[in-house]
Amino acid sequence: MYLFYAIDIPENIAVGQSFVLDEEESAHAVRVLRYTAGKTIHIADGRGTIYEACITNPHPKHCEVEILGMEPQAKHHPGNVHIAVAPTKNIERMEWLAEKCTEIGVDTLTPLLCHYSERKVIRTDRLQKIVLSAAKQSLSAYLPRLNELTAVKDCILGSDEQRRYIAHSSPWTNKRDLRDELRSAPAGIPTIVLIGPEGGFSDDEVRLAMEHGFIPVSLGEARLRTETAAIVACTMINVLTDCSSN
Amino acid sequence: MYLFYAIDIPENIAVGQSFVLDEEESAHAVRVLRYTAGKTIHIADGRGTIYEACITNPHPKHCEVEILGMEPQAKHHPGNVHIAVAPTKNIERMEWLAEKCTEIGVDTLTPLLCHYSERKVIRTDRLQKIVLSAAKQSLSAYLPRLNELTAVKDCILGSDEQRRYIAHSSPWTNKRDLRDELRSAPAGIPTIVLIGPEGGFSDDEVRLAMEHGFIPVSLGEARLRTETAAIVACTMINVLTDCSSN
Repeated sequence: MYLFYAIDIPENIAVGQSFVLDEEESAHAVRVLRYTAGKTIHIADGRGTIYEACITNPHPKHCEVEILGMEPQAKHHPGNVHIAVAPTKNIERMEWLAEKCTEIGVDTLTPLLCHYSERKVIRTDRLQKIVLSAAKQSLSAYLPRLNELTAVKDCILGSDEQRRYIAHSSPWTNKRDLRDELRSAPAGIPTIVLIGPEGGFSDDEVRLAMEHGFIPVSLGEARLRTETAAIVACTMINVLTDCSSN
Repeated sequence: MYLFYAIDIPENIAVGQSFVLDEEESAHAVRVLRYTAGKTIHIADGRGTIYEACITNPHPKHCEVEILGMEPQAKHHPGNVHIAVAPTKNIERMEWLAEKCTEIGVDTLTPLLCHYSERKVIRTDRLQKIVLSAAKQSLSAYLPRLNELTAVKDCILGSDEQRRYIAHSSPWTNKRDLRDELRSAPAGIPTIVLIGPEGGFSDDEVRLAMEHGFIPVSLGEARLRTETAAIVACTMINVLTDCSSN
């Protein structure tokens, strides 16, 4: 099965109405998959609905479809996960992280700009393509929200998640084990984890986070790279918040 | 801190005895880090011991050290994890998997040769270097065992792990959720998970595994790529087997 994506599909589109796929999806349907008129395809809107649609005009750039039906899709992952992470110096590792978190289950990804960030610019459009492609590969109708590069201060002040954590390795503050924290959390509670750059968060950043309700946590005994920490935190929230509810 | 590795260090080496680092580690100590005689370094044997040693002859190819002391290191991860996984067609994804599983915590990695494998050869020496480098980066004295490419049949017949799982997506057999399985498992029980290639395991492979005590499992609702499945299974074992013991 191939899942098409159309994040600009109108929310109030009705059965029998028509819609035109964007150039990329049109090319995929008509040029790559060689679909012709009458073929039924599935289109996700990125907000949790999958549309069944029939190709009416197999134009290679503006493929027109008619909506046959729509169905909400249950989220594949139990967590309600916001990973805010400083992009790695090596951008490939950040791209891997975005792909893997999308597959495993993340709701929001925020690239963070920190005091010790070695990477201070990021091409969000490129990252957005990777996230979209991973969501399609996972057959998920939910497209994670990818924010622009955000100063860590703004992320801290703007966070409205009920459970807020900052993963860091500075020795000056007591850290709880994120696993223990999550085991007592019912599934689905909005949770944010901040992950610092290779050089770690500055003391000021940790302090500011703590002043705003972020709990300092460790992700276990092993020393993890930035991108591994993000993937492990994402997996833990999905696996463990589910744990206590059983 | 930089952790040197010497997997050929004799198990019975005593304080006061000398040892020569291999060429790569010698070059790193003397050429890259510019260490001189008298510098104290830490050397892991890959079997759980960290040696404190003093450089006596800073030769750039055969750096000699004298053992000052030794200390066992607790394992960073609670699980006893064997991931047997068919190498991905794109070898970078397999290399990334090996790096991440080593960081997160794996005891044995076995590349599997399956009926639907698209990749039928693999350079284990290259993979070994990646595993070693990830163990060093994690400051772990335990080097995961990396097996040669193994036919899935031989892996199934040779498995002596107490808990055996095969993750697959064929619809013809009932699958348990690996998360539920692990929640009832005390930490540290030897556990193996088989992960198939992009094309999945063949029905014969699943049947053979089931005949030999492997329980068919799913890793959740999301469709995961081979390398993501391996990382998620590895994280689940380390995070969840720990769960029930609390």
